[in-house]
Amino acid sequence: MAILPIDGGRYGTKEMLTIFDDQKKIDYQLMIEGAVAISQSEIGMIPKSAGQNIFSVSRSGKITAKRVKRLEAKSDHDTAALVEALSEKCSAPARPWVHYGLTSNDLVDTSTSMQIKDTLSIIQPKIAKLAVILAQKAMEYKDIPAVGRTHGQHASIIAFGLKFANWAAEMAKHIERIEEMKKRVLICKTLGVVGTGSLMGARAVEVQRRVARRLGLYPAEVTTQVIPRERYAEYIFQLALTGSTLEKISIEIRNLQRTEIGEVSEHFKEGQMGSSAVPVKRNPIKSERISSLSKMLRSQMSTAFENIPLWHERDLSNSANERFTIPMCSILLDEMLQTMIRIIEKLKVNTEKIQSNLYVTRGQIFAEFVLEALIRKGVPRFEAYRDVQRVAFEAHDNGIDYIDAVKADPSISSKLTESEIERIFLPQSHLGASPQIILNVNTMVRKVCKKFI
Amino acid sequence: MAILPIDGGRYGTKEMLTIFDDQKKIDYQLMIEGAVAISQSEIGMIPKSAGQNIFSVSRSGKITAKRVKRLEAKSDHDTAALVEALSEKCSAPARPWVHYGLTSNDLVDTSTSMQIKDTLSIIQPKIAKLAVILAQKAMEYKDIPAVGRTHGQHASIIAFGLKFANWAAEMAKHIERIEEMKKRVLICKTLGVVGTGSLMGARAVEVQRRVARRLGLYPAEVTTQVIPRERYAEYIFQLALTGSTLEKISIEIRNLQRTEIGEVSEHFKEGQMGSSAVPVKRNPIKSERISSLSKMLRSQMSTAFENIPLWHERDLSNSANERFTIPMCSILLDEMLQTMIRIIEKLKVNTEKIQSNLYVTRGQIFAEFVLEALIRKGVPRFEAYRDVQRVAFEAHDNGIDYIDAVKADPSISSKLTESEIERIFLPQSHLGASPQIILNVNTMVRKVCKKFI
Amino acid sequence: MAILPIDGGRYGTKEMLTIFDDQKKIDYQLMIEGAVAISQSEIGMIPKSAGQNIFSVSRSGKITAKRVKRLEAKSDHDTAALVEALSEKCSAPARPWVHYGLTSNDLVDTSTSMQIKDTLSIIQPKIAKLAVILAQKAMEYKDIPAVGRTHGQHASIIAFGLKFANWAAEMAKHIERIEEMKKRVLICKTLGVVGTGSLMGARAVEVQRRVARRLGLYPAEVTTQVIPRERYAEYIFQLALTGSTLEKISIEIRNLQRTEIGEVSEHFKEGQMGSSAVPVKRNPIKSERISSLSKMLRSQMSTAFENIPLWHERDLSNSANERFTIPMCSILLDEMLQTMIRIIEKLKVNTEKIQSNLYVTRGQIFAEFVLEALIRKGVPRFEAYRDVQRVAFEAHDNGIDYIDAVKADPSISSKLTESEIERIFLPQSHLGASPQIILNVNTMVRKVCKKFI
Amino acid sequence: MAILPIDGGRYGTKEMLTIFDDQKKIDYQLMIEGAVAISQSEIGMIPKSAGQNIFSVSRSGKITAKRVKRLEAKSDHDTAALVEALSEKCSAPARPWVHYGLTSNDLVDTSTSMQIKDTLSIIQPKIAKLAVILAQKAMEYKDIPAVGRTHGQHASIIAFGLKFANWAAEMAKHIERIEEMKKRVLICKTLGVVGTGSLMGARAVEVQRRVARRLGLYPAEVTTQVIPRERYAEYIFQLALTGSTLEKISIEIRNLQRTEIGEVSEHFKEGQMGSSAVPVKRNPIKSERISSLSKMLRSQMSTAFENIPLWHERDLSNSANERFTIPMCSILLDEMLQTMIRIIEKLKVNTEKIQSNLYVTRGQIFAEFVLEALIRKGVPRFEAYRDVQRVAFEAHDNGIDYIDAVKADPSISSKLTESEIERIFLPQSHLGASPQIILNVNTMVRKVCKKFI
Repeated sequence: MAILPIDGGRYGTKEMLTIFDDQKKIDYQLMIEGAVAISQSEIGMIPKSAGQNIFSVSRSGKITAKRVKRLEAKSDHDTAALVEALSEKCSAPARPWVHYGLTSNDLVDTSTSMQIKDTLSIIQPKIAKLAVILAQKAMEYKDIPAVGRTHGQHASIIAFGLKFANWAAEMAKHIERIEEMKKRVLICKTLGVVGTGSLMGARAVEVQRRVARRLGLYPAEVTTQVIPRERYAEYIFQLALTGSTLEKISIEIRNLQRTEIGEVSEHFKEGQMGSSAVPVKRNPIKSERISSLSKMLRSQMSTAFENIPLWHERDLSNSANERFTIPMCSILLDEMLQTMIRIIEKLKVNTEKIQSNLYVTRGQIFAEFVLEALIRKGVPRFEAYRDVQRVAFEAHDNGIDYIDAVKADPSISSKLTESEIERIFLPQSHLGASPQIILNVNTMVRKVCKKFI
Repeated sequence: MAILPIDGGRYGTKEMLTIFDDQKKIDYQLMIEGAVAISQSEIGMIPKSAGQNIFSVSRSGKITAKRVKRLEAKSDHDTAALVEALSEKCSAPARPWVHYGLTSNDLVDTSTSMQIKDTLSIIQPKIAKLAVILAQKAMEYKDIPAVGRTHGQHASIIAFGLKFANWAAEMAKHIERIEEMKKRVLICKTLGVVGTGSLMGARAVEVQRRVARRLGLYPAEVTTQVIPRERYAEYIFQLALTGSTLEKISIEIRNLQRTEIGEVSEHFKEGQMGSSAVPVKRNPIKSERISSLSKMLRSQMSTAFENIPLWHERDLSNSANERFTIPMCSILLDEMLQTMIRIIEKLKVNTEKIQSNLYVTRGQIFAEFVLEALIRKGVPRFEAYRDVQRVAFEAHDNGIDYIDAVKADPSISSKLTESEIERIFLPQSHLGASPQIILNVNTMVRKVCKKFI
Repeated sequence: MAILPIDGGRYGTKEMLTIFDDQKKIDYQLMIEGAVAISQSEIGMIPKSAGQNIFSVSRSGKITAKRVKRLEAKSDHDTAALVEALSEKCSAPARPWVHYGLTSNDLVDTSTSMQIKDTLSIIQPKIAKLAVILAQKAMEYKDIPAVGRTHGQHASIIAFGLKFANWAAEMAKHIERIEEMKKRVLICKTLGVVGTGSLMGARAVEVQRRVARRLGLYPAEVTTQVIPRERYAEYIFQLALTGSTLEKISIEIRNLQRTEIGEVSEHFKEGQMGSSAVPVKRNPIKSERISSLSKMLRSQMSTAFENIPLWHERDLSNSANERFTIPMCSILLDEMLQTMIRIIEKLKVNTEKIQSNLYVTRGQIFAEFVLEALIRKGVPRFEAYRDVQRVAFEAHDNGIDYIDAVKADPSISSKLTESEIERIFLPQSHLGASPQIILNVNTMVRKVCKKFI
Repeated sequence: MAILPIDGGRYGTKEMLTIFDDQKKIDYQLMIEGAVAISQSEIGMIPKSAGQNIFSVSRSGKITAKRVKRLEAKSDHDTAALVEALSEKCSAPARPWVHYGLTSNDLVDTSTSMQIKDTLSIIQPKIAKLAVILAQKAMEYKDIPAVGRTHGQHASIIAFGLKFANWAAEMAKHIERIEEMKKRVLICKTLGVVGTGSLMGARAVEVQRRVARRLGLYPAEVTTQVIPRERYAEYIFQLALTGSTLEKISIEIRNLQRTEIGEVSEHFKEGQMGSSAVPVKRNPIKSERISSLSKMLRSQMSTAFENIPLWHERDLSNSANERFTIPMCSILLDEMLQTMIRIIEKLKVNTEKIQSNLYVTRGQIFAEFVLEALIRKGVPRFEAYRDVQRVAFEAHDNGIDYIDAVKADPSISSKLTESEIERIFLPQSHLGASPQIILNVNTMVRKVCKKFI
């Protein structure tokens, strides 16, 4: 019986779920205990042999979640249970030095940093992969003219690939942000009860430096009992922000897949059941799911913000909610990325529909270019505008194509030759800098993403 | 292996978890199928025998979650699987009439209403129970003078029970709101694909009326394919609002339990381990947990709001996130209520500390009453104020009790006799309307809560 | 020079702005002072003549914002300045009794209740007006078949009026909620410094009861120094919730006004300039503005929630932000309502486009009704479904109308006569219960709104 | 008459308000027009003389907000009015080239980037100033032992300066984040209607590059009609995050200023009126105001997130709310920083109270150090713990000092000499790495902040 759809198996990739599993959490914490002991022994804070014994036992794979749970059942304290489970496998002389100078929260927060490091090592390559696929699509549709819409209305002409280029570039920015935040978020903290290094004295700073290096983390510069929660807010924000870009893409797909627009559609398996109501109906349900989860993701920001002002050297009011928000946001963003990669990889782009949609307004979309041509011919802007608009409204009211109306109107056709007019009404002529921009984005994205793929 | 702490067993009462369990969800949906069929047969829309057969099979307990899951594995459509599992237990003539005129979402939304009805039947009595316990505590400390604090500073005197009375009254308001919202939130919707009643024609309205009555719900007046999500926003809001009141209580307890204040403390089991650092330390961890979960709860409001503007007759962008927010918020509020009931029931109130805290300012807390007394003796307010303050600052600077300074100051002691002064410095004299207010609240709370206990 | 667009005159109706203007705030507070004094004098707490003098001066219009500001500049305390400005206009014997037993926050919170009462007296009739207009539109388009869309895809047929009926009903619910919340939100609190009635003793409760009656408010049952902020959260929630329904409508209009859909459009003034790019372009900018402000409105909920757990008998951490959220949310919702009323009143509904959109799928939208007809003829559902779908896909691939494909297919046409088939493809046949539902909604809405119009 | 407290003058420094004033907005936009024209003329896109004329007129100071407003009153279009106001001051041949190839939103978004650049040039130095002041305070109280509190309970000993060091370091991180985000947030976009460079063709990219350099901004790599709103979300997030750290500080001050704790207090002007109730009462109202505004600030995040998924090449649903959120959040954070600088600069630290608070538990706070000393003497941890705790509870129950109980207990005093015991009970002995950490933070903060001061 599962209640929430992560434990129920509906959402979450296996690789991501593993990071938040019980044994893994214990393994992270054992690695910390080992790294602390060996570091303390290196600088003579505890006996060399104790350090080595604790270190090797902590990495031996002999301490199981099962054993820790059993001990926890007695002591009702999870860290105490872990320390006991580790101690009982250590040599007698090493035992007193297990967990020396530490407090429970050193394990809790530092292991969370290790989890975050691992989630980022999954998420970042997926963002990079998506960015590259988007850049490829941008290149593929680099020279395909399409309707540009503002306010839901046909407004002008773009290269269809420009849509993908915008998304690809945004993904590259997410990679950049994640790189930058690592030094603030992947923090190792072993400064004990109230962040003073406790029993280790001034050398606590050196111990922490060594532990951090061993764990591939950054040593805390200063803390209370806990790592400041503004760091976690940054992590959650970055996940939610990436999710919002994914939602932006998903909403565009949902809109372009509308029955009336039909420029793209999500892939459907051959033989997959359509709707019973309208057999040829294709619902963009993957995109809708991304939209749905994105709301969920960014909704957690309030909690992350409210956790920042803890009282004094700490209070516990962050603890229960972080048990939800950190795994939930990590798992859901990964799920969304995975889904979006699949959507884009298999996206069906209907270039015929893209082409025919250009003529839904019967050529009125070219009016701005007629205007421009007249001005270049020396017609004052105001006068040119008046003519362009008058002809457009007449064409609309009479239900005729704008190009025909333009040709038939003496005030315009006296200024522009028929072949000039025809060139104006070629969509291909109006891609502007689109192809150049797409090329630049493609280069940039490949450069940013190279190291993650 | 559990990822989130609800499925992991950390949070959630058994009774509440059951509501969101797989078999239960199927049972709710079967009840709907049965109620629809029998209602349709009553008005001659489908054969009488078909209605009765479907109705009795739907309530037979023979359709298991296991079977539905197996069928779903084939069709990849949960409602189709449920309908098939139900059909295969029905008589052949009844089968074509299973799910007649319905759409999947009729089951999804109406069963959610049934869940919400059941969650409220758990939550409301707990709020009532808490309200009554709080009212009892209010009565118990109705005449105990205590420091009233504003801005974290000693400000005046209250009856200690007034704190409980405020909370009790707030709980009563939550009960009132829940009562009022039921008619909007507990909605039955069986109007088919796009809310037109679909194949049932105009009689769909009558069918829905009958189904609603059978299920103890309110019939939808009008819908799209789905019940409007502004109703769910109201539900989530009410849960989050109740959670915020619980947080208010929990923060007060955490503050009153501070080492320096010590007026209350959460119950500790005899022999429960104190902190190793400070053996007599008592951490208000239950209250801290409530604070933590309350942030989580209200954080979900954004999602609930953003689900309201679905496109056209529906889109799916509410679906995935509601799988989280509805169970999560329901389960967590229930957990918080349960915890708060335990906290208040066993709360240790330290009346000695309450008493001694009144003298932390060495009597300065009585200054406003000295002022008042002087004014009543005819001293102009401005003059009285100047004296009261002057004497207060001198007493403070010289480290002497304010009462002694007052007695020693001729400009005051010439107006007030020693016995008048002494009466002013009795905390008991300054409860104001507290006892009366507490009595009124107690009466009101008992009246509101009677029917839920 | 204005910074924010409310003070800049961009948003806000005059009637609503007035409520939050300086003089008005002072007038509210003077009314409270007067009501308190006269009530206290009625029960003999202060001299009769003092009560009457204070009461009549408070309503004399002689105390100006200007004078209060000048006094505030000296004392740096706004309530003190108000009390002084009032006192200096009172008779000498009455002066000591001005503000007797009150604290500043009695004025602040109670005057906020008076403001909220006045905002609701503007907002509620506008909601009612909108509801009635929507109901009228629903009636007007009660029998017009239109495409029903799910997932952005053509799904089935509805009466176009059903869209309006959904919105009208939702507005009626907002009226209902506002009615219900008044008793919790329109609170009079005159219980002094820490909610004990302070110097007035037990009779403070009676004074407050009389003051509340005079001001048309509900007496607080119990408070700290302040009215509990869970009440304000309810107010902000209700505003934000109404805003979200308005956004739902605005998004539907924006979608239906898309160039490719064109079923409705916002009114454009004759001669209003179109876009220079596409002269016939019509942007739904009013609806877009409503969407924009709705986000802003509901975003304030976090602040409202976080204000609930104030410390002890009060802290000030609600004060600064309420200076923004309460006027801002009130003014913006009113603005949005006003705008939406204008949009709906003048909405251009293009029934030709509604009609022609029914055929965008070349008749595939009728497939569910073909299926149903076959089943009624005794064809097993599975078999019927297979045929309906096969023919649909073939028609789609061959680019022919579904009705023609159906007629041409022997497995279907052997079961259904040509005239039966033609009736199936009449949109008019598939309104289901739409007209009935619309009629019911219209009746309900008129009943609910009657008293507000 | 002002409605909101920014326009009312309550919040906002003059330097920050200026950035959002009408004339300034126009000046920003004129600078863009000028930079575009000169850049276009440099690469031969428009005549040299036209470029120079437009450039110099745009910087001439001759185009006033007043004139633009008057023209806007006619055209009802703000950008058109600006372009006209600029054109009428240009030479006749230059006029057709004003605003060449641009769209209104190029001005809107790019001028917002210029505003943000200017707000950051105010905010960043204030953060730096605050960081340095906090680092100074940290150094000042580097060796002062103080109670470290967890869960609101006395937990251990810290150097009082450690509190300031935590805050100083957090401020340094904010500076770091702001530096990093500039390249993403300070974006110049002059790519026209739908981001294709419009009439300028492929050379639009080069024009934009030159304009960006002139304005000290970063050229957009790719856009739709608008700069992607994920950038604005990052800006708002960073403001809100900084605000949350300020709230953390403000809450600590409010807690430390509690009557019962009294370790710090906000500065009070000599002669400033205390509370009439308790003359010596000192309310931390500045800190409370910061707490209040911080909630407001982070509450705007939802709006910022929801603006990200605009439809297609743009919709207008971001526009109205950004008129609030961007100035409001910028102005309020600046106000909060200003206030916090004042608070910290003048903060009264009561070292006597800090000292005496160490003994509130009558020495129990030293228990962990007794435990540690026993272990070092070879007593097994379990045994030592049992003794330490037993003695602590007895001391507590008998109301005697823990040091006396320890000395009197044979099982402890047999292991530790009296002088050893006395050293254990010296707070000074337990600062751990605090002084070292503070020194490191001070160095780091000074390095990070140097360039901003």
